[in-house]
Amino acid sequence: MEVSAAIIFSAEILGVIAFAVSGALLAIEKKLDLFGIIFLGITPAVGGGVMRDLLLGAVPPYMFRNPIYVFVAFLTAILVFFIKVYIRKNSDRIRLITYQIINIMDAVGLGTFVVVGADTAIHAGFGKNGFLVVTVGVITGVGGGILRDLFIGHIPHIFRKHVYAIAGFVGAFLYYYMYILDLNPIFAMFIGISIVILLRLMATYFKWNLPRVPIEDERR
Amino acid sequence: MEVSAAIIFSAEILGVIAFAVSGALLAIEKKLDLFGIIFLGITPAVGGGVMRDLLLGAVPPYMFRNPIYVFVAFLTAILVFFIKVYIRKNSDRIRLITYQIINIMDAVGLGTFVVVGADTAIHAGFGKNGFLVVTVGVITGVGGGILRDLFIGHIPHIFRKHVYAIAGFVGAFLYYYMYILDLNPIFAMFIGISIVILLRLMATYFKWNLPRVPIEDERR
Amino acid sequence: MEVSAAIIFSAEILGVIAFAVSGALLAIEKKLDLFGIIFLGITPAVGGGVMRDLLLGAVPPYMFRNPIYVFVAFLTAILVFFIKVYIRKNSDRIRLITYQIINIMDAVGLGTFVVVGADTAIHAGFGKNGFLVVTVGVITGVGGGILRDLFIGHIPHIFRKHVYAIAGFVGAFLYYYMYILDLNPIFAMFIGISIVILLRLMATYFKWNLPRVPIEDERR
Repeated sequence: MEVSAAIIFSAEILGVIAFAVSGALLAIEKKLDLFGIIFLGITPAVGGGVMRDLLLGAVPPYMFRNPIYVFVAFLTAILVFFIKVYIRKNSDRIRLITYQIINIMDAVGLGTFVVVGADTAIHAGFGKNGFLVVTVGVITGVGGGILRDLFIGHIPHIFRKHVYAIAGFVGAFLYYYMYILDLNPIFAMFIGISIVILLRLMATYFKWNLPRVPIEDERR
Repeated sequence: MEVSAAIIFSAEILGVIAFAVSGALLAIEKKLDLFGIIFLGITPAVGGGVMRDLLLGAVPPYMFRNPIYVFVAFLTAILVFFIKVYIRKNSDRIRLITYQIINIMDAVGLGTFVVVGADTAIHAGFGKNGFLVVTVGVITGVGGGILRDLFIGHIPHIFRKHVYAIAGFVGAFLYYYMYILDLNPIFAMFIGISIVILLRLMATYFKWNLPRVPIEDERR
Repeated sequence: MEVSAAIIFSAEILGVIAFAVSGALLAIEKKLDLFGIIFLGITPAVGGGVMRDLLLGAVPPYMFRNPIYVFVAFLTAILVFFIKVYIRKNSDRIRLITYQIINIMDAVGLGTFVVVGADTAIHAGFGKNGFLVVTVGVITGVGGGILRDLFIGHIPHIFRKHVYAIAGFVGAFLYYYMYILDLNPIFAMFIGISIVILLRLMATYFKWNLPRVPIEDERR
């Protein structure tokens, strides 16, 4: 039990770091100052959890009750800032490897946030409402990224990205289904998280995309 | 009573459909994928209600306690997607008629959401606070559309649209006034909703607009 | 006590006016209609307080329990509208003086909102959680401005502005520190607010800025 809690926590921290890197890099690209970089590093890391807690009425949100997540995101954003200031010339190869590492960490984060979010909803007493559990789980996973994109004036990335929220839905649904079947919760968590990671990595590798409406005569 | 509840519910569903169509069409225009289309279909349909419930402390929001609204918006978005994929060439006439039907449904939705929102605030125990009741009613009606526009990077449409939020204000205010006068609530609802619909249709027909500051020498 | 409460209240009202002017001017620049101008005047004035109250679970938010702030912001926005309509040709000198007055009032508002926000968090029972108190204080001060910028499609100004949120942090932190030291709360409030005002005016005067990452080869 102790060990599994430690593994879940480590996965959460990996996710926080990946999400914070994504926010800090976007902030730098948009020429924001150090405060903006830190703010946009923290937003994707804790924004989904804040939404979850507001929706469940669990106030003040968890980020205030256990500041470790904000603190890790804060340090990550600072680190990204210094790396960007001092290491300005990256080879394309380093760029690619960095991108791939971040992508894997992001998948770990998405999976963990979604499953932990669904689990939080169950423990808040909504175990009988599968629609709520799954939706709140997905919001926990993707809400922070949506906020991040809104803050820098982008249409949220998950509305166009290779199968992202859908991977979260599958993970949350599976986790909830195993909860209904009364399986071991730790086991269910690992399965749920693993499925999300697997789907995300396959979606990236095979460039899966959801269908769109083909548009020819567009005004814009 | 039963019959009037059914009529109110039908009006709500008409509104959900109209709001979902508006979101889905914008998502398609912005080239979002199917997830984005569904998300942007659901957002305007339930976003205002979520804001209302968070402001009133009625958590989890009603959309989680009765998923029918999300479900209808979901189906509507899917339907819009398929119509857009398979029926690509519209005549201008069909476009115009469609637009007019949606506009009427949107007016029905706005009126119903505003009045039901105000009524929810009253039943949550805030009947003595007219400012709260009217404001929360209007937020219920227009909040989802504001979120929709933020998500796709537009300045919210209601900040420039022919008398929209104002129509909602009039409806919410009238409903509250009739509540104070202790009139029959069902009667008050129908009057409130009808006024909003009437104002919206007249605003569209006569191209009413609120005043702006005329700007000549603009920098941007 | 009475006198100090009156001073704090006056400082809040100065802040509400300054924030409302900022929102109304942006709305006019973006060619919004009168409703948009009023909405964008009210948003920065009360948005941070609404966020604070939602995070603390103090619902309905204070703006609904005491509408004076909304009312002042409403009147301010209307006034800005009429001034802009009737006094179209400003000399550069009047423009500059107006800007400077607004900037001072904005500093007063930021300081007061931050300290009152931190104080609200303490009185809501979170006095032992310094991280929460300081963060909620800063959110109270800057949250409304972030919302205002999102609504008009700008990247929030405080992500690039001369030392703004940082000034709020310093004020909230100092106020909390004096609370821990059990100093007289009124005294602590005045010190906290004064520090924020001082930092903001110095930041504007000396053009202090937080560091950014210098970017040469930018794609966009």
